[in-house]
Amino acid sequence: MKRTTEKNLMVFSGRAHPELSAEVAAGLGTGLVPQSAYEFANSEIYIRYEESVRGCDAFVIQSHTAPINEWIMEHLIMVDALKRASAKRITVVMPFYGYARQDKKHRGREPISARLMADLFKTAGADRLITVDLHADQIQGFFDGPVDHLMALPILADYVKEKYGREKLAVVSPDAGRIKVAERWSARLGGAPLAFIHKTRRTDRPNETVANRVVGQVEGRICVLVDDMIDTGGTIVKAAEALMADGAAGVVIAATHAILSDPAVDRLKNSPAVEVIVTNTLPIAPECQFDKLTTLSIAPLLSRAIREVFEDGSVTSMFDGHA
Amino acid sequence: MKRTTEKNLMVFSGRAHPELSAEVAAGLGTGLVPQSAYEFANSEIYIRYEESVRGCDAFVIQSHTAPINEWIMEHLIMVDALKRASAKRITVVMPFYGYARQDKKHRGREPISARLMADLFKTAGADRLITVDLHADQIQGFFDGPVDHLMALPILADYVKEKYGREKLAVVSPDAGRIKVAERWSARLGGAPLAFIHKTRRTDRPNETVANRVVGQVEGRICVLVDDMIDTGGTIVKAAEALMADGAAGVVIAATHAILSDPAVDRLKNSPAVEVIVTNTLPIAPECQFDKLTTLSIAPLLSRAIREVFEDGSVTSMFDGHA
Amino acid sequence: MKRTTEKNLMVFSGRAHPELSAEVAAGLGTGLVPQSAYEFANSEIYIRYEESVRGCDAFVIQSHTAPINEWIMEHLIMVDALKRASAKRITVVMPFYGYARQDKKHRGREPISARLMADLFKTAGADRLITVDLHADQIQGFFDGPVDHLMALPILADYVKEKYGREKLAVVSPDAGRIKVAERWSARLGGAPLAFIHKTRRTDRPNETVANRVVGQVEGRICVLVDDMIDTGGTIVKAAEALMADGAAGVVIAATHAILSDPAVDRLKNSPAVEVIVTNTLPIAPECQFDKLTTLSIAPLLSRAIREVFEDGSVTSMFDGHA
Amino acid sequence: MKRTTEKNLMVFSGRAHPELSAEVAAGLGTGLVPQSAYEFANSEIYIRYEESVRGCDAFVIQSHTAPINEWIMEHLIMVDALKRASAKRITVVMPFYGYARQDKKHRGREPISARLMADLFKTAGADRLITVDLHADQIQGFFDGPVDHLMALPILADYVKEKYGREKLAVVSPDAGRIKVAERWSARLGGAPLAFIHKTRRTDRPNETVANRVVGQVEGRICVLVDDMIDTGGTIVKAAEALMADGAAGVVIAATHAILSDPAVDRLKNSPAVEVIVTNTLPIAPECQFDKLTTLSIAPLLSRAIREVFEDGSVTSMFDGHA
Amino acid sequence: MKRTTEKNLMVFSGRAHPELSAEVAAGLGTGLVPQSAYEFANSEIYIRYEESVRGCDAFVIQSHTAPINEWIMEHLIMVDALKRASAKRITVVMPFYGYARQDKKHRGREPISARLMADLFKTAGADRLITVDLHADQIQGFFDGPVDHLMALPILADYVKEKYGREKLAVVSPDAGRIKVAERWSARLGGAPLAFIHKTRRTDRPNETVANRVVGQVEGRICVLVDDMIDTGGTIVKAAEALMADGAAGVVIAATHAILSDPAVDRLKNSPAVEVIVTNTLPIAPECQFDKLTTLSIAPLLSRAIREVFEDGSVTSMFDGHA
Amino acid sequence: MKRTTEKNLMVFSGRAHPELSAEVAAGLGTGLVPQSAYEFANSEIYIRYEESVRGCDAFVIQSHTAPINEWIMEHLIMVDALKRASAKRITVVMPFYGYARQDKKHRGREPISARLMADLFKTAGADRLITVDLHADQIQGFFDGPVDHLMALPILADYVKEKYGREKLAVVSPDAGRIKVAERWSARLGGAPLAFIHKTRRTDRPNETVANRVVGQVEGRICVLVDDMIDTGGTIVKAAEALMADGAAGVVIAATHAILSDPAVDRLKNSPAVEVIVTNTLPIAPECQFDKLTTLSIAPLLSRAIREVFEDGSVTSMFDGHA
Repeated sequence: MKRTTEKNLMVFSGRAHPELSAEVAAGLGTGLVPQSAYEFANSEIYIRYEESVRGCDAFVIQSHTAPINEWIMEHLIMVDALKRASAKRITVVMPFYGYARQDKKHRGREPISARLMADLFKTAGADRLITVDLHADQIQGFFDGPVDHLMALPILADYVKEKYGREKLAVVSPDAGRIKVAERWSARLGGAPLAFIHKTRRTDRPNETVANRVVGQVEGRICVLVDDMIDTGGTIVKAAEALMADGAAGVVIAATHAILSDPAVDRLKNSPAVEVIVTNTLPIAPECQFDKLTTLSIAPLLSRAIREVFEDGSVTSMFDGHA
Repeated sequence: MKRTTEKNLMVFSGRAHPELSAEVAAGLGTGLVPQSAYEFANSEIYIRYEESVRGCDAFVIQSHTAPINEWIMEHLIMVDALKRASAKRITVVMPFYGYARQDKKHRGREPISARLMADLFKTAGADRLITVDLHADQIQGFFDGPVDHLMALPILADYVKEKYGREKLAVVSPDAGRIKVAERWSARLGGAPLAFIHKTRRTDRPNETVANRVVGQVEGRICVLVDDMIDTGGTIVKAAEALMADGAAGVVIAATHAILSDPAVDRLKNSPAVEVIVTNTLPIAPECQFDKLTTLSIAPLLSRAIREVFEDGSVTSMFDGHA
Repeated sequence: MKRTTEKNLMVFSGRAHPELSAEVAAGLGTGLVPQSAYEFANSEIYIRYEESVRGCDAFVIQSHTAPINEWIMEHLIMVDALKRASAKRITVVMPFYGYARQDKKHRGREPISARLMADLFKTAGADRLITVDLHADQIQGFFDGPVDHLMALPILADYVKEKYGREKLAVVSPDAGRIKVAERWSARLGGAPLAFIHKTRRTDRPNETVANRVVGQVEGRICVLVDDMIDTGGTIVKAAEALMADGAAGVVIAATHAILSDPAVDRLKNSPAVEVIVTNTLPIAPECQFDKLTTLSIAPLLSRAIREVFEDGSVTSMFDGHA
Repeated sequence: MKRTTEKNLMVFSGRAHPELSAEVAAGLGTGLVPQSAYEFANSEIYIRYEESVRGCDAFVIQSHTAPINEWIMEHLIMVDALKRASAKRITVVMPFYGYARQDKKHRGREPISARLMADLFKTAGADRLITVDLHADQIQGFFDGPVDHLMALPILADYVKEKYGREKLAVVSPDAGRIKVAERWSARLGGAPLAFIHKTRRTDRPNETVANRVVGQVEGRICVLVDDMIDTGGTIVKAAEALMADGAAGVVIAATHAILSDPAVDRLKNSPAVEVIVTNTLPIAPECQFDKLTTLSIAPLLSRAIREVFEDGSVTSMFDGHA
Repeated sequence: MKRTTEKNLMVFSGRAHPELSAEVAAGLGTGLVPQSAYEFANSEIYIRYEESVRGCDAFVIQSHTAPINEWIMEHLIMVDALKRASAKRITVVMPFYGYARQDKKHRGREPISARLMADLFKTAGADRLITVDLHADQIQGFFDGPVDHLMALPILADYVKEKYGREKLAVVSPDAGRIKVAERWSARLGGAPLAFIHKTRRTDRPNETVANRVVGQVEGRICVLVDDMIDTGGTIVKAAEALMADGAAGVVIAATHAILSDPAVDRLKNSPAVEVIVTNTLPIAPECQFDKLTTLSIAPLLSRAIREVFEDGSVTSMFDGHA
Repeated sequence: MKRTTEKNLMVFSGRAHPELSAEVAAGLGTGLVPQSAYEFANSEIYIRYEESVRGCDAFVIQSHTAPINEWIMEHLIMVDALKRASAKRITVVMPFYGYARQDKKHRGREPISARLMADLFKTAGADRLITVDLHADQIQGFFDGPVDHLMALPILADYVKEKYGREKLAVVSPDAGRIKVAERWSARLGGAPLAFIHKTRRTDRPNETVANRVVGQVEGRICVLVDDMIDTGGTIVKAAEALMADGAAGVVIAATHAILSDPAVDRLKNSPAVEVIVTNTLPIAPECQFDKLTTLSIAPLLSRAIREVFEDGSVTSMFDGHA
């Protein structure tokens, strides 16, 4: 008994950000696999797929947004169900990688939760990961298998170039740890000068900062303040203020992941920034929308990466000439 | 350089049910290890121990109550932090084992979440488990390592015997799958007759049932309706009603795990049951307290089990003569 | 150098029950892969395949019958040989899952042999399992990979329905732990009433029982006494006698696995049961045949399941509308 | 809560060769841990320890004699029970390592059963192995952990030296693959000359040989024919005959493992060998005893090795000056 | 048979940097375990310990210096030998962690060699790691077990403070990716201002850089140029030159790991730096010594960390009040 | 979205012996995948593939020649890069398996480096191995997966037969441990008589031997002295001399692996051997060439084996009728 083998692409979505998943599936010319998904009364999650998934090449999309532990657990349970239902290969797609910030022991007796997440997904049955703009590139090495690490930089930077390219620009990192990313922006924006904010972050309460000193020349320039994510917005808004105080001509904020925890929206609205540019790797609640906020879709990038993975093409080449 | 080795017992508690943990620690003549534990703005959990844990024999207690995914994730992160901080041995204590009900594929393409949980804890670094009254005994076999499976039966049944032992009793299982437990109760209550409720459970929506027929003789007897857990209370209250309709002299409900999801409290209050006896494996919110509810503490059982494990004694012998 | 990939189905059989394997292979339109298999003088087993198996989709069938440790070890060695000979995927087919009854620690310091078996097959190289009517559904969760759990219920129940469907039936479980299965039978037989036998089983010598009390109404009914397996037949024959003593109109016994250890055949012959219906998941020796014994073949079910697995179809849908 | 840690040595025995285990335990000044062990009617094995084993340093002895698969499976199940009952460290003691001869693929599509055995024991929970005179030294590398490989050579050779040391000796290997061992014997017997038998072994039926040519000088010498094991005795008896035909003054056979499968006893009795010297790594049935057979006990060697392991001494130093 | 358990500290050293190991062992009041270690003619490495290591708490020190693959392989083989000789716990001490720079995929189809190293040591048998000043903190998360990450910062910075503390200082990072470290230096040197060099590194040939622009105020200040390692010295010397060109009053270079590959020594000698301060985590060849080079010993730090690990103390507390 | 799956064969080569790899690739009608490979200044190895390898069936060839640790580490890093770049299956091709001689503990507290190598490659991501003439066949069992063990015997022996087949031959093993191989040669050369050299090898310095006694009849015969490898040549040249001293008519040396460490070439040149026949599993430096040396190519054998593996054919059948 012989058969020519065929691969069947199937896209699955958790319930954290179904709009993004639907857009990704549409970009692949397919739909999301129908499923039952709900909570039991005691908040345990239940998942069941309504179609046979045996032998499929599965891509399971979940945005790790708040309540983040719910969605990560749902993601894990979805992978387990696929493994037990004989999916051939399981690719976990996490546009935002939860717990990416806890990627090392800042102090003794802390977990390394980012590594734990990688191991949990491996245990559940994940064969590979696709993710966007990790907090630190090294997190790729936490997963024991292939990781396709996508960059939103081309999407964000092309938008900035188109809209602000005729101004005198500077690229600014809001803290000392992210200047590497700012360097890539600088290269892409034709070598714009770099600056960063020197501040002290309290290690035990990472959302509170203390001092802000601009290092680098920003006077008279439109400062593109870049980061991988905006959580409560405290750091980046203080950075924007420091830049204006140092004579910047204006501030534009660009970040991949719009976590926008309270009180990020108020802070950003009231900040000196003229525009805040983000992607939809995380869902943005209607009440978090505001005039200055521009959201670019990450879906085309994800669709293209999934297609390359499915067809054994090259994901790397998607970024040739960039960065 | 030589040293006689010493073991140091340390008890850690997640934030789901600190009162129980404190009671367990007190029963061991010690306190809980101080820690920092809180959520980041985007709901990621942060844990850090305030004391050195290197080389300790760690017992990490967490009740898997709602929001259950939060608390399980916190439990996992606590174990990871202990592993990376060089604890010698890590025993996970879960008075209630989350996702225990999803212990098999009821239908195709479902996860087996109870196995997934066992594997996640193993991956995080757990060396052994202590738990109470699993939904199915087979779950012991899901964990690759020693599992101490404790029974609340002696605590609950001794209370029932003391209070109702002079009545004509029957032991009743609310459904066909739990009669094994009722059998143990029957043995402990001097061979009281058994009965069960024959009903059809919809497989896709496990909390909704359809029909209730009493199988067995209950007329004129005080029925002890026993189960491992009470979630929304629908099954058990309908069972109580069916028993009364069949001529029971009264109903007493006894269960180990008081999940008490909405609308369990209302149902139980309004049920024909004269008393509802549970333990505190799960925290019971003040608004869930009601007159007929009796809560027995599981802490002495847990303390004694931990002591036996620490001192290489026998946990099994704790139940000699019981069950 | 490119090649379109092809899958090649190959069926392998241990020596425990070659007739069943041959029937399964025939149902797939193929034959068994020829092999050398024998014991060395000191009873070590030797296996070698006579054809190349490189890249094949292997299904390895072995019935775990007595001498069960011989056949399990042969099964493991066959899997090891396939792994080392580069089979692409190895599916272990165990119509009867050996050691399924030791699925938990009944008392302290026991093994959980059913989990051990799952791990041994994983270690040897098994990618997935196909099995029939596990002693407890939870055993699915013991194997770290896909398990296709087939049910003989449709085969057995359709036969019963056809032959006894015009009588007034009751479905009876021989003990408290198997009522769940009886419930499924009841549903399939149009809602026939349920009953069970309340007895005390000695935990240390599981084949000896003590007391038998019928719980439920059986008077004047043909009782279909259902179980997953018949080993020495003690439990089920005592159940049949208790039913007759309680006024049953007759007893029909139905079970999937006919272990039929001594003195099962004598007991069944002399029992009040009018018919004993089993499948051939285990070989039935000529001396174990008797007039009242009806054997239905499980081979078509296995063939169809293997075909679905090979062709990435759905095994679950084979049972749609059943149970 | 602090405790000084203590280690507790416990010796467990399978049912294959309890006399040897008892002798080993006695040599350690202790007894065997009492247990329940029996077969179910369908030949499944059941094990339970009658004493708490929590935290112990366990040594589990089983001789892999026929029916070898029974005893290996019992050995595995004993290890599983110890793991689940929280033994601290589990050392598997196999005086004879079953399936040691299948240590490579002699031809394509064979298993490597000796590696499989190592992996099965690791999976069941073994931390280390103690064994005697492996068929090939490389098997040590099959187990992922410490292996203490003991030699019976000093026991056997000292006996030979004492009894035959005044004769003109030659050391002979019965086939080309075991000359390495003969070399060690030669060294220990003061540099006695070496010889071997050049024969063709059929690769598919390893117990049948074809031709026998003596390579080396044996004329007028007492030939010590050495091997690791005697199974059916065909090879070694033919070797003895060839030696006599070549003018040997006499033949003494020495081997560690006395498998003695049929018709070994008859062959040895009728052979020209004047004495057959073996150890009791395997039980020797009364009907296998014969006049020329001398059995030396391996128990003192095993006791001493276990003591060294328990006390963190050196096993290697037991063989200093030997071999 | 009972014994109080004892731990025995043993220190092992590879051949890459025996002086450091000897100093560490001396700091612990012990010596290095004697061993045979040499290369076969074909350059395979052979290791054997001359003393029993059974049950010991082993610390295996190797500096990953050139020829780095030799020394890493020796390190792995040493760990394997310890595992197979029954060491109780194996701590790998790598003062410099080889391949730490390849901690992510800079471009597609690259290895993540730093993760590979962690996995290789885990496979060989390492239970935990001790290392100094990782290239990226995230590498801690590459190892599945406890990692004690020591900092040379207190040693280096106290020296700088003592010698240059009365000057007007600035702390400078030689590139955008290391400013985080400079921030810690700044904190420790009383809040000295920060600066960094903005340059473009060719991604395919990491040792060649293109442009150097000082970002931050350095005029009139003694610049402490800090890095984790000095390899060929190209980056750091160009940074020193750029600082002088921007008006710095002087440059002091401080780095933990002195790789000093050609032509680092010439570059540093001829650079404007007045002093180059390093530690001896790597051996410094006599021909690499030069007047401006100051080497501080890391041995006391390693000794103290090993002692804390052995005695279940706290390594973290060694750095309290620092950084 | 469906696709017929295709396999794509890609051949990769380390830098140890590129000529052999190129010849193998040419034999498959393809070329080597282009890559960047070089050392950093501190001797760390860097690898990157210049083409997409996603989904390919990868064969990675490296000869483990001196400096052997360099080349093994490069081999491991190449496998890691393939795994992380999503190769579908990775076959490691090691014409010579490094550290094969350390396949057991010759004495206590040694590593088993040959097993360690197998585990390191498994950890890096290898799915299967292809190798030639292992030092001991048992090494196949060290790798947890399929191993294709090729024999150079047909290539070498056919050459010998053609050239020396008309002479009176004897087959001689240079030591007691390799006579098994000599037996296969004897069979292939029409049953030529066997002999071996009895010598004592010092266990701590394996390259130095002590005594040489010819066992077997060699007088007047052309002796084919066979071994798996020639390292320093001491053993085999002393064997040749002993044979001549015993009256041999001539000596021809045949070995698969030409390690040829110093002073092998001088020894062989000056030895009584008339010809030394080897294969190119290892590169032979120009300065190691000498008149009597004949090198046969192993490439056709490797090409054919790779083709069989890629096309799911049979590697075993390549040797049918041989050995």
